[in-house]
Amino acid sequence: MAAYSLLMLPGDGIGPEVMRQVRRVIDWMSRRRDLEFTVSEGLVGGCAIDAHGVPLSEATMEQALAADAVLLGAVGGPKWDTVSYDKRPEAGLLRLRKELELFANLRPAVVFDALVDASTLKPEVVRGLDIMIVRELTGGIYFGEPRGIEDLGNGIRRGINTQVYTTPEIQRVARVAFELARKRGNKVCSCEKRNVMESGLLWNQDVTALHAAEYKDVELSHMLADAAAMQLVRNPKQFDVIVTDNLFGDILSDEAAMLTGSIGMLPSASLGAADASGRRKALYEPVHGSAPDIAGRDVANPIASLLSFGMALRYSFDRAEEADLLDRAVQNVLKGGMRTADIMSPGMARCSTSVMGDSILREL
Amino acid sequence: MAAYSLLMLPGDGIGPEVMRQVRRVIDWMSRRRDLEFTVSEGLVGGCAIDAHGVPLSEATMEQALAADAVLLGAVGGPKWDTVSYDKRPEAGLLRLRKELELFANLRPAVVFDALVDASTLKPEVVRGLDIMIVRELTGGIYFGEPRGIEDLGNGIRRGINTQVYTTPEIQRVARVAFELARKRGNKVCSCEKRNVMESGLLWNQDVTALHAAEYKDVELSHMLADAAAMQLVRNPKQFDVIVTDNLFGDILSDEAAMLTGSIGMLPSASLGAADASGRRKALYEPVHGSAPDIAGRDVANPIASLLSFGMALRYSFDRAEEADLLDRAVQNVLKGGMRTADIMSPGMARCSTSVMGDSILREL
Ligand SMILES: CC(C)[C@H](C(=O)O)[C@@H](O)C(=O)O
Ligand SMILES: CC(C)[C@H](C(=O)O)[C@@H](O)C(=O)O
Repeated sequence: MAAYSLLMLPGDGIGPEVMRQVRRVIDWMSRRRDLEFTVSEGLVGGCAIDAHGVPLSEATMEQALAADAVLLGAVGGPKWDTVSYDKRPEAGLLRLRKELELFANLRPAVVFDALVDASTLKPEVVRGLDIMIVRELTGGIYFGEPRGIEDLGNGIRRGINTQVYTTPEIQRVARVAFELARKRGNKVCSCEKRNVMESGLLWNQDVTALHAAEYKDVELSHMLADAAAMQLVRNPKQFDVIVTDNLFGDILSDEAAMLTGSIGMLPSASLGAADASGRRKALYEPVHGSAPDIAGRDVANPIASLLSFGMALRYSFDRAEEADLLDRAVQNVLKGGMRTADIMSPGMARCSTSVMGDSILREL
Repeated sequence: MAAYSLLMLPGDGIGPEVMRQVRRVIDWMSRRRDLEFTVSEGLVGGCAIDAHGVPLSEATMEQALAADAVLLGAVGGPKWDTVSYDKRPEAGLLRLRKELELFANLRPAVVFDALVDASTLKPEVVRGLDIMIVRELTGGIYFGEPRGIEDLGNGIRRGINTQVYTTPEIQRVARVAFELARKRGNKVCSCEKRNVMESGLLWNQDVTALHAAEYKDVELSHMLADAAAMQLVRNPKQFDVIVTDNLFGDILSDEAAMLTGSIGMLPSASLGAADASGRRKALYEPVHGSAPDIAGRDVANPIASLLSFGMALRYSFDRAEEADLLDRAVQNVLKGGMRTADIMSPGMARCSTSVMGDSILREL
């Protein structure tokens, strides 16, 4: 029987309560399918600051490096708004991404048939939407040096960040996008600002070169990032896979997520390079944040976290069957009319985080 | 009688044909209102490359520096995709912005009542939408040094750009946002990625400090740029004035523009600092691009360019009365059912660029 180690990092806000439901599904999978998970838990973000004074302890970093997959809840909240810049909750997440070398962030934006009305866009514009955004996650302006704030005197300061990309960084994430496209709609749209930024020009050229060398069967297009922000609103269904850098990916994937009207439903995967045995480091987390305003009230939607575990089954453990099972369970529960508050609509049954978990387990 | 000098730079694609309609309105204003305009014309973008080998000649730059206002059409097109990076059409526009020191780019996203159905968003989400995005336009990653592409050998290159902001740069554009807010809904939302970028942290602190010192009567909020990309889709009417940096402003303003469903309707103003006599350098241009696919066919919508001239009347010439006149003429023509192809809907009368111009002149 296959045995895997999972590190769960529930984090802050609604993180712990949604991850509790994930834990139940993990246990179900361990009992019912030929899959064994050893699960350990750790702290990340604000709760780690409270406990250890840093958003990610060395011990937890070690655990993450050793695990087959990391499942993260969410980090941050107003409580930690005043901690110093290098110790803020987000620094824990950024360190995980960087040290695990999770360079490819997969963010699906999918509209569930049962939830098409949750979108602020007209149903005909978003019905059946299924975009996969592949965001570069360990480079660009998030990590470039030099960076910082200098004091120039007289109350004047200067803030600096650096956007850097190299050919290998660009091509390895583009490769992930092309491979994914082959299993989907076979189209990749690469986004940058080549008309303004040299790093975008390089991005464009390196993606084009890789395509010509190895992926001519995939349809490649290029779009300026600002035009992509427009086209996502105008006609989102034109896209299949979008590949873009860390910063544009942050913004475009959030915009795309909100097109669905239900970000409480959207999972994400962050993947590293495959080693000789085909294994890759990976972290899975919902697209939504820590939602401190509703934390601890058992009203948050656990589906994004559950589907993130589904992505783990698919991408880390090669268990498409179990992932499909989970996807179908979620869909059936939605069809049955169960709704957490965030996706509530007239005529449906409003349920809590834990009751949503119950229903999905029953469905499994 | 007040006399002003205007430099018209029609540029590429549909630029010349929409600017022709602007010229007619300028002439009308000169004939009928106590306003005199001396109009000169010049080349920018691809047409300047074709004529002079550069996207903006020194002579045209001189004219722009001397003019009371510059009216620009649009630049760029596939014809110039292969010219070298420093000579591409966009470089002409960027040079104008930089040398005229047009640090504040005002981009309204307004939904016209008659066109509410043009949006891909549900009517109740966008009806009455009226956002003003104030984008910093002469700093940030657009102009920061070092920048460029280095060859590292072995087919590997590195692309670099630098995001830099100083306190005065941040505060002068924030000041424009606060001043505008006072004449509108009295709310400013400042957007950055302070959780990831030190330049964003500085932005946040400098805007906060200016607010505390001089604009406490204005309601200030802060939002991460990715969250703003979401909120623009989820509930755009929560915003009044948004102030943000050059790159985030590029993306968020295009997203906001597309919420309206009719970017052929949206003007913009780029303003410099006021001199001792209260005059400021300024450039006005439609939000839409050069649309090479429909250029020369007399089908483009001239309204964005006309309303850009309206902004010139308001911000450069202090002629709110004439600007209102023009706004009303546009609204009445729309109410009357005239539509260019981009805003066409069933039951309306499709008209050409020039017939739209005729109708607006008649209405004036
Ligand atoms: C929490 C923050 C550092 C993060 C980012 O900017 O990458 C978040 O917005 C995300 O998209 O995962
Ligand atoms: C043409 C291009 C240089 C420009 C920009 O990126 O600023 C355009 O997208 C805009 O928003 O005016």
